[in-house]
Amino acid sequence: MIVTDSAAEAFSWSRRMRSAGLSIGLVPTMGALHGGHFSLIERARAECDRIAVSIFVNPTQSGPGADLSRYPRTPDADLAGCRDRGVDLVFTPASSGRDAVYPPGFQTWVEVQDLARPLCGERRPGHFHGVATVVAILFGIFRPHRAYFGQKDYQQARVIERMALDLRLGVQIEIVPTLREEDGLAMSSRNRYLSSEERIRAVAISRALFEAERLYRSGEVRGSVIEREVAARLGPDSGLRLDYARVLDALTLEPLAGDRIDQAPGGAVVAIAAYAGTTRLIDNILLGSEDRGRPGGA
Amino acid sequence: MIVTDSAAEAFSWSRRMRSAGLSIGLVPTMGALHGGHFSLIERARAECDRIAVSIFVNPTQSGPGADLSRYPRTPDADLAGCRDRGVDLVFTPASSGRDAVYPPGFQTWVEVQDLARPLCGERRPGHFHGVATVVAILFGIFRPHRAYFGQKDYQQARVIERMALDLRLGVQIEIVPTLREEDGLAMSSRNRYLSSEERIRAVAISRALFEAERLYRSGEVRGSVIEREVAARLGPDSGLRLDYARVLDALTLEPLAGDRIDQAPGGAVVAIAAYAGTTRLIDNILLGSEDRGRPGGA
Repeated sequence: MIVTDSAAEAFSWSRRMRSAGLSIGLVPTMGALHGGHFSLIERARAECDRIAVSIFVNPTQSGPGADLSRYPRTPDADLAGCRDRGVDLVFTPASSGRDAVYPPGFQTWVEVQDLARPLCGERRPGHFHGVATVVAILFGIFRPHRAYFGQKDYQQARVIERMALDLRLGVQIEIVPTLREEDGLAMSSRNRYLSSEERIRAVAISRALFEAERLYRSGEVRGSVIEREVAARLGPDSGLRLDYARVLDALTLEPLAGDRIDQAPGGAVVAIAAYAGTTRLIDNILLGSEDRGRPGGA
Repeated sequence: MIVTDSAAEAFSWSRRMRSAGLSIGLVPTMGALHGGHFSLIERARAECDRIAVSIFVNPTQSGPGADLSRYPRTPDADLAGCRDRGVDLVFTPASSGRDAVYPPGFQTWVEVQDLARPLCGERRPGHFHGVATVVAILFGIFRPHRAYFGQKDYQQARVIERMALDLRLGVQIEIVPTLREEDGLAMSSRNRYLSSEERIRAVAISRALFEAERLYRSGEVRGSVIEREVAARLGPDSGLRLDYARVLDALTLEPLAGDRIDQAPGGAVVAIAAYAGTTRLIDNILLGSEDRGRPGGA
């Protein structure tokens, strides 16, 4: 397994692979790898000839107040986990600083408009601006045939999928189902911030989503009804502080036409963001998309 | 010569060429081809195995008041000119409308910041936003090894060069010297809008640039002095309406440090925009760059 902090080396590696007719799968990460990341890598391994993983805590997708030095870093475990799963190259620009990704004088930004506006886009201004830009750069370095993103960050995946389509980047975006702990909590690098009490409370998020699914399966197709039910379950009694709970069209991330989940061509996404203490957690579930094709799928 | 309005066909053609180990040169144009464009094509022909020309009057780089239907269109002459010069593929999405370049639901924009701010960026808000985005899309379709732009649109070329570098598009940007009519007027598709009287007046623009060059060669290194001299020659007596006349650092397009052309690492650009009647003409000249390497060059 090649480990490099050089974009030039990553670029020439990927060019060699393409020239040899080999397909490249890219898994972009911010490190602190967990089961969710490994499921992306395993999916990539099954579908591509060569697998690259990037580990980079991107400074441009966090608000000005964010303390990046607090972001969890587990470099040795990350590399071991990649090696165990047959990753071919790990790009770790973090170790040589921001310039390895953003060259001196950097001034080009990629902006996806409508899909980046609601949900986390509203709550974290500039976040998707930074996400789209860094992923465009990683796609420039690797020119992957496929790139893998977790459904937990559903809006991020849809923003990147749209960017790849609009700028004709030639990358197939694969959205991989969320991996969960035994009690339902979505796996996330941030979970390690939770105190044991917060960890117990956090399970209310996935429980609210499962309740939304139960309601939909029992015939409730009105987004507003499900939205209210989800929000009620994450009220003050939950010990969490709700940031948002929305039921939106899964393809456009706009309000559901006529409030009807069953009328949306790609179904609906139930999206939640909530704070457990100072840790912001997000999660989501798709409703009504199974029968009409996976959103974002080929 | 292949002529296609299909981005998918252009994409698969370029993939075949790359797979065969052939280098691709792209010349993006808005049609109404003239000697300046043909010099780009000939340069590409000399440097690349396969040449693609795009002809597309991009709707996103003009202000809301612009009437694109007025933009000159000479499709038959354009195709004949390309064929005569050994072009391999002409991409003419204009004939099938905007959707061939911007798919339905398009919402992704590329923005270059500092370089796009002064000069035409100040006078035509949103212009370079549209330029950078459409060129990013064309680079996505063709994945060219080299792309060719005329020095007449100097700021455009520098914006695109920066975009290619920042997003690691892997395209070498070649800036080709401006071609001029016998009296010095820079070749431009817009020249055909000029009345015979305006055509005579328009020569004052290149004369002012040549005077700037003469002053610099005779030892004047202060940008402000040259800027004043250029502006004076394009005053009301010229019959033109000056939009801007600036002497800027040729690499950053910022004001010259210490007002000294000879201290700027890439020299200076003298840039003019002026109206002859209702036609806006631009032109520029580089000072002090010869001895320190071509700006934008490899």
